[in-house]
Amino acid sequence: MTYCLAVNVNKGMVFASDSRTNAGVDYVASHSKMRTFIFKGDRSVYVLTSGSLSTSQAVVNRIATDLEDPDAEFNLLKANHMHEIADYVGRLSQAQQAKHETAMKKSDISSESSFIVGGQIAGKECSIFHVYPQGNYIKASLETPYLQIGENKYGKPILDRVIALNTSLEDAARCALVSLDSTIRSNISVGPPIELAIHTNNDLDGPYQTIFNVNSPMYKSLQKQWNEGLKRAFKKLPRFEWEKPSS
Amino acid sequence: MTYCLAVNVNKGMVFASDSRTNAGVDYVASHSKMRTFIFKGDRSVYVLTSGSLSTSQAVVNRIATDLEDPDAEFNLLKANHMHEIADYVGRLSQAQQAKHETAMKKSDISSESSFIVGGQIAGKECSIFHVYPQGNYIKASLETPYLQIGENKYGKPILDRVIALNTSLEDAARCALVSLDSTIRSNISVGPPIELAIHTNNDLDGPYQTIFNVNSPMYKSLQKQWNEGLKRAFKKLPRFEWEKPSS
Repeated sequence: MTYCLAVNVNKGMVFASDSRTNAGVDYVASHSKMRTFIFKGDRSVYVLTSGSLSTSQAVVNRIATDLEDPDAEFNLLKANHMHEIADYVGRLSQAQQAKHETAMKKSDISSESSFIVGGQIAGKECSIFHVYPQGNYIKASLETPYLQIGENKYGKPILDRVIALNTSLEDAARCALVSLDSTIRSNISVGPPIELAIHTNNDLDGPYQTIFNVNSPMYKSLQKQWNEGLKRAFKKLPRFEWEKPSS
Repeated sequence: MTYCLAVNVNKGMVFASDSRTNAGVDYVASHSKMRTFIFKGDRSVYVLTSGSLSTSQAVVNRIATDLEDPDAEFNLLKANHMHEIADYVGRLSQAQQAKHETAMKKSDISSESSFIVGGQIAGKECSIFHVYPQGNYIKASLETPYLQIGENKYGKPILDRVIALNTSLEDAARCALVSLDSTIRSNISVGPPIELAIHTNNDLDGPYQTIFNVNSPMYKSLQKQWNEGLKRAFKKLPRFEWEKPSS
């Protein structure tokens, strides 16, 4: 499995992804699930993937080769709006799934992939989309300015508590890391390294991008502080009537 | 859906359950999912249910009528060990499902139910079991002394951080409430009132039992304190290198 998320706040966007892939429990590996396409000053596009790794990789590869092909019917540079790119990723995904459909069905294996597609085109607003395996897609809303793919339940409560449109980019990034860390602790199919990209609104020179592995000082410190902070918060919870007051 | 959990620590057991049931989104109702059978001085048995409400209710009703029937092949009073009761609940569940199997299959509706069965028989230890829809069951372990049924992912991270064998009963109960509250906030198919039962080891005079609705002072206070505590913990997380230190 996988856990990826994206947040779209007033100040910009945050993208974060784990790196664990598995084919059953006896074949576990690390693969990046974040791909960034930066055209300085013009546009930045971010693609996060979950589901069938072969479908995900094929889609990302096709995005890259379409960029090299001046005769391509469509590519990232031909888009006028981000939603055209979400639509394009949906078409590529469907085409790739169709290619192996008969064989996959025979083996009862799913070739479905889900994507988070986000970015900004010069002069336009930041936006993030969830592209479903069927090729259709939704945009994050003002009410719920985040999207998740893969193992999304463990890390949802903290997003629901923290993320709002006026959340700072740094807080959104910390929240994404906490959301990923909670998922990693509770679900063995999600694992580090964690990739993080922070895109500041109207800054088309490329995002702040980093990879946290288990020994990264920032990630270790965040894990420790969060754990200690939760335990402090827990200690302050109200007592039952028969208990002594908390010390 | 549903979310129920049970914790078995050195000092005793905690059982907690939500009360929301739904048949699609257009028929939502409240039903208790916790049933306690107390035989003072002899044994206390707790049954939590999730899945098909009709199967769950039929099983609980059968447990009650078997108790009134001196000729019953088995009932809660005839058990020498808690695992016999888990096995019995599994048998009742399977029998009930078999009764409506053909009709349910025709309508493509599941009659499956899952149960948490726990309790203590005089002179024996406290124990909790997860009874699967297929009738088989597992016991909580020393390494993971809690069990969950229903929507279990949202509320798992806090259990993984807090619950250990030496956790006090009051802390285990608070943790169960936080776990339920996180689930209720993130998943509309889980809702109050919350039922809570705290069984102290070797106290067979009945548990401390209470029901929290949205206006219960203890529950409101716990929600508020937890939310504020999380926000304080969040504020203390490490800064990125370009940020000013947190104030």
